[in-house]
Amino acid sequence: MRVGILGSGQLGRMLALAGHPLGHSFSFYDSSASSATVGLGECTVASFEDIEALKRFAGQCDVITYEFENVPCAAAETLSSIRPVFPPARALEVSQDRLVEKEFLQGLGIGTPRFRSASSESELREACEALGLPCIVKTRRFGYDGKGQARIDDLADVARVWKLLNGAPLLVEGFVPFSRELSVIATREQGGQVCLYPLSQNEHIEGILHRSELPAPDVTPKLKKAAYQLISSVLEELQYVGTLAIELFEVRGEVLANEMAPRVHNSGHATIDCVASSQFENHIRAVTGMPLGSTEPTARAVMFNIIGRIPALDQVRDLPNARVHLYGKEPRPGRKLGHITLLNPSKAEEDMVNGLTSER
Amino acid sequence: MRVGILGSGQLGRMLALAGHPLGHSFSFYDSSASSATVGLGECTVASFEDIEALKRFAGQCDVITYEFENVPCAAAETLSSIRPVFPPARALEVSQDRLVEKEFLQGLGIGTPRFRSASSESELREACEALGLPCIVKTRRFGYDGKGQARIDDLADVARVWKLLNGAPLLVEGFVPFSRELSVIATREQGGQVCLYPLSQNEHIEGILHRSELPAPDVTPKLKKAAYQLISSVLEELQYVGTLAIELFEVRGEVLANEMAPRVHNSGHATIDCVASSQFENHIRAVTGMPLGSTEPTARAVMFNIIGRIPALDQVRDLPNARVHLYGKEPRPGRKLGHITLLNPSKAEEDMVNGLTSER
Repeated sequence: MRVGILGSGQLGRMLALAGHPLGHSFSFYDSSASSATVGLGECTVASFEDIEALKRFAGQCDVITYEFENVPCAAAETLSSIRPVFPPARALEVSQDRLVEKEFLQGLGIGTPRFRSASSESELREACEALGLPCIVKTRRFGYDGKGQARIDDLADVARVWKLLNGAPLLVEGFVPFSRELSVIATREQGGQVCLYPLSQNEHIEGILHRSELPAPDVTPKLKKAAYQLISSVLEELQYVGTLAIELFEVRGEVLANEMAPRVHNSGHATIDCVASSQFENHIRAVTGMPLGSTEPTARAVMFNIIGRIPALDQVRDLPNARVHLYGKEPRPGRKLGHITLLNPSKAEEDMVNGLTSER
Repeated sequence: MRVGILGSGQLGRMLALAGHPLGHSFSFYDSSASSATVGLGECTVASFEDIEALKRFAGQCDVITYEFENVPCAAAETLSSIRPVFPPARALEVSQDRLVEKEFLQGLGIGTPRFRSASSESELREACEALGLPCIVKTRRFGYDGKGQARIDDLADVARVWKLLNGAPLLVEGFVPFSRELSVIATREQGGQVCLYPLSQNEHIEGILHRSELPAPDVTPKLKKAAYQLISSVLEELQYVGTLAIELFEVRGEVLANEMAPRVHNSGHATIDCVASSQFENHIRAVTGMPLGSTEPTARAVMFNIIGRIPALDQVRDLPNARVHLYGKEPRPGRKLGHITLLNPSKAEEDMVNGLTSER
């Protein structure tokens, strides 16, 4: 089948690399072409508002999916009038707005950090007072990698943060004294079967994922069950098709849902190397109507992102258990350029790669 | 780097799929384009005699390699005047002519089946008499997958076989009472480091590989050592860069070299799924000047080729330990359309996939 992918970044790249061996081919659509998918399929460069271009693109594809959640819902609707689009439009709607997302999760009985919305400086102040400080303030839309976020430790910061976030509609979250950040990733296929990946434990630097360990260490059966139940209920409620990721906080042995991504997720990149069917492969299997492959881990995997600049990799390439993945992108501060996955690494190996990838 | 690949079939496809994560991009050159590499890089379609087209192609690439050994040596020379070409030209010369190949192997002290050359019907008869019947007769050039081969059981067959093979220059081999066919694959990088893959045990149907098991079962340390020594001496003698495969016969616990392929090889496809750095990845690492990755197997892998037609694969896709690889080619009798690798399969799983792929 020809799979159309909205977006042309590294997630699209890894989807195509996983999908070619399944016998599929790929076309991309993006408002500005990324070098990450060059050579893996043609890219239509056009606005997501360009109805005619969207229609032409849909006509070239058998099925359409996306690699980022900020696809305008109207574009998804135009496309789905011509070809199946997975995951479903409602997954986009829910995950594009942090307030709608949190309300959706709570509606399913899933615990989240306490939150308030705020559309004015005075509402922001009231929300901070109601939730207690510190608070995390996020724009409701278009945030990623720590962008569109700020922390308020003192009510005197309210005016500054309101200006910093450009007066955008906000979600204000009570601070959660979490012991760690985890994520749970799962794929649901068209018949409703679900496969669950091992949880990953995530560490960020300056709001951008730095390290993921998969399977996450020291996960109690109770924690694992809670994470799997909550993602399963989201998949079922949305009649989801494809791979979904939910970021979690672990707080005193319980999990709270932080946010969801209706797509493959950076914290699941290690599945390329430590699981038979990666999050990318199972996403493509799901959207093209194939059964799902195994998600049993064959190794403990530790992934480090390569951000901003590509360090000297000779030392890493000499490690037999290191897998370097580069995305074909030009270096730029804060940009995700690749990742390194270590399989069953020693402490020394991990420290070396951690050191190489911590400097950005 | 931009890697130019001569040929655009499934081997080129799998080289590109392995090379993209390393950060490389790909261009192909072929006398007629194959659908197997569509979407993985641009393909120049031109004759291998077209000097201007070859030069333009070389100018677009940083390094050039090939996925089949019948690249005309003159084309390789033209290209190598502009860009590095790996493996080296001598590897092409040696492996394009079965007589030169056998003499080369014997010159290194490597055992082969006994052989004679024949350029006329009477020489063919003399060769059969000298070697004793049965004999295997092969055209010296352009044979593959059992094409350009015949067996002579009776001297009365000589005239028929001479006609059948169109009076081409021949190599005649004495019949070898081998207990099984094995292959050994290794990669040598530019600094001279060599990595060795586990031996595979191969079974053919009608001259085309049907099943490979890797690591080959019941390999004695002596056998393994002999196989590794012989491929290492070939790599060293040719100052080879890239992946090389040598087909072997096991005869009474010894190995004889049957033929070599200066490229990735069908019997190594299982390395995609059972080894950290597959034969494809290490080939790309070698030709682009990277260190080699690990070749330690993580599972017992059994590969079955999909030839001529694609069977119903639902049953296979439901197996968590099955990896289906399709090449994006239209079905045609005798054509390699894909392969299935089973990891640590049960007898029942193997029998099922064997059944599906035995009918062509």
